[in-house]
Amino acid sequence: MSSARKLFVYDTVLRMHRGGQLQSPTLAFETWGELNEAKDNSILLFGGLSPSAHAASSAADSSPGWWEEMIGSGLPLDTDQYFVICVNSLGSCFGSTGPASIDPETGDRYRLSFPILALEDVADSACLVVDHLGIDSVHTVIGCSMGGMSGLAFCLRHPDIAQRFVSISSATRALPFSIAVRSLQREMIRSDPKWLKGDYDPGDPPITGQRLARKLGMITYRSAEEWVQRFGRERSTDHPLAEDQFVAEFSVESYLENRARHFSGAFDPNCYLYLSHASDLFDLAEYGGSLESGFKRLQLHQALIVGVSSDILFPIVQQRELAAGISSVCENTKFLELDCIRGHDSFLVEMDAFRPVICRFFESCRE
Amino acid sequence: MSSARKLFVYDTVLRMHRGGQLQSPTLAFETWGELNEAKDNSILLFGGLSPSAHAASSAADSSPGWWEEMIGSGLPLDTDQYFVICVNSLGSCFGSTGPASIDPETGDRYRLSFPILALEDVADSACLVVDHLGIDSVHTVIGCSMGGMSGLAFCLRHPDIAQRFVSISSATRALPFSIAVRSLQREMIRSDPKWLKGDYDPGDPPITGQRLARKLGMITYRSAEEWVQRFGRERSTDHPLAEDQFVAEFSVESYLENRARHFSGAFDPNCYLYLSHASDLFDLAEYGGSLESGFKRLQLHQALIVGVSSDILFPIVQQRELAAGISSVCENTKFLELDCIRGHDSFLVEMDAFRPVICRFFESCRE
Repeated sequence: MSSARKLFVYDTVLRMHRGGQLQSPTLAFETWGELNEAKDNSILLFGGLSPSAHAASSAADSSPGWWEEMIGSGLPLDTDQYFVICVNSLGSCFGSTGPASIDPETGDRYRLSFPILALEDVADSACLVVDHLGIDSVHTVIGCSMGGMSGLAFCLRHPDIAQRFVSISSATRALPFSIAVRSLQREMIRSDPKWLKGDYDPGDPPITGQRLARKLGMITYRSAEEWVQRFGRERSTDHPLAEDQFVAEFSVESYLENRARHFSGAFDPNCYLYLSHASDLFDLAEYGGSLESGFKRLQLHQALIVGVSSDILFPIVQQRELAAGISSVCENTKFLELDCIRGHDSFLVEMDAFRPVICRFFESCRE
Repeated sequence: MSSARKLFVYDTVLRMHRGGQLQSPTLAFETWGELNEAKDNSILLFGGLSPSAHAASSAADSSPGWWEEMIGSGLPLDTDQYFVICVNSLGSCFGSTGPASIDPETGDRYRLSFPILALEDVADSACLVVDHLGIDSVHTVIGCSMGGMSGLAFCLRHPDIAQRFVSISSATRALPFSIAVRSLQREMIRSDPKWLKGDYDPGDPPITGQRLARKLGMITYRSAEEWVQRFGRERSTDHPLAEDQFVAEFSVESYLENRARHFSGAFDPNCYLYLSHASDLFDLAEYGGSLESGFKRLQLHQALIVGVSSDILFPIVQQRELAAGISSVCENTKFLELDCIRGHDSFLVEMDAFRPVICRFFESCRE
């Protein structure tokens, strides 16, 4: 457990966006830098589906975070100037209340009795943390991937609080290709006999389904072009004991196996199902009946939309749509298409491409 | 069982390309049109991974075939002029010997004792059928998808027999993205507890794994763009009894479910594993150590390479590579990039785009 992690218990009932409620949910978060006296220098960061609130190391926790090269003194999210907040999404399993948490009303895990999760709930619960910290104006909301949709939900629902918005490799809503991929990932987990309709033994979870789902994830997070350069048709030297002739033979297969094993033990399967489903459900057009009416609810002073040309999960056409819509209501909107080859994951691994982009955004805020 | 289907038993030992052998394998095939006296008007058609030899209807079998609109009197593969042959791939389960067939030496199904299958074996066994029909010169070899690689193997290994080659949505070898997809499909089947390391009960096969694999197949056979137009974010009206909140909700999910249920009962899982694996293994560069040396073995008089811009499984860059390589050894080579939106499956469904292309090829043969 990260010693930098703070817990905020919302000691009342949280009503959920699509019905149901949670009694006294906990939100786990981390912060970096100092809140200034005017309390107007905060950056609220929303991560993708899988990460915890540990976006970067700190004195209290020296382990590297999921955006380590982006947050710190002199870095793009410069902790000498800004107070950075990252909340573990509601519904996740790294300290915030989710399906793997104990329901105080029953004393058992929520499992599938957890209400349907919406990214609106992720946004609103992050707003409770912001409020708890005494902040009533957030300098910049930043979201990556699913977090970009959570961030957009935040800006829609708390337009008086969100001043600026940076969306990275995200969208106004999921396309049917992405829905199909995520639906299949969920079905892989639900088809694992160990899932037991969500009632799995936490010590013996549906690892097989999770491993398959993670592999499909990796296939859609990266790009065909990257893998040509990285693996080609190279054979694997790192053979597991061959159970049958179909066991991994090419390097790309071993790579997927290693990545999947690393992930599968670390994430609760029911939490995964809820967050994945929430990603499919979010739709800006639900705000007033169309994308146009949705965009009109925003009251941003500045925005930056960044996309990657090789992304197949949140394709560049969706970034253009988001940028065009936001610029129709916020003149100071910039759109950047990065030519990285690592697909959707580029924002996590192509730091040399992303750092200057985020730096320039914050420089322009001070101009 | 199709009454148009003919069976040829090769009444000796077939040595397999990657080791092992089959005793007296059977090849199932169908033919359309008449072989002329010179025996020089035959077209040999190689299908993708899943179809049978029933490419088109005939007097003997009126059910529509998998390329129904392409083969017949006055159609692109014009049976008034040509003698069309389609062989069910060795290793498949529609009459030709494969892992689901009885091994004459044991009296039991081969299952995983079937030797490793290569597309070279698919090509060479089709050549046995050609020979059996008394043909020593094939006018045109046509292959689609995996069949394009089988057809290329045929042209490489029987250069004196193959006069012309048409490749549709195929490649010189699989890219790591496609290997990753197929490897994951195989793992879905192998992870199904009912697979039993290949020893499943034929009356109770690993349907769940097959269904998952087919869904991933459909995701890679079509295109994101098609699905935006076809489904958007439309909700499904055709709800199965909701077992839990994660059951299909969007139209695209119901579509995949329907397609997967249709397929899963019809194809033997072990046969699928063998053919899928063979698709990964094939590599033109194994002929002499490089693609260049491989191309040099061809002795074609004419070739046509057709690809589809929205194909993600056999992307257009691979079609260009194939066309450039063949044109370096065969001057009369044409390359066509079709702008269909139905991805890899376009050759099965966008007949209005494909018919004229194939028509023009055969017209040009007669000029």
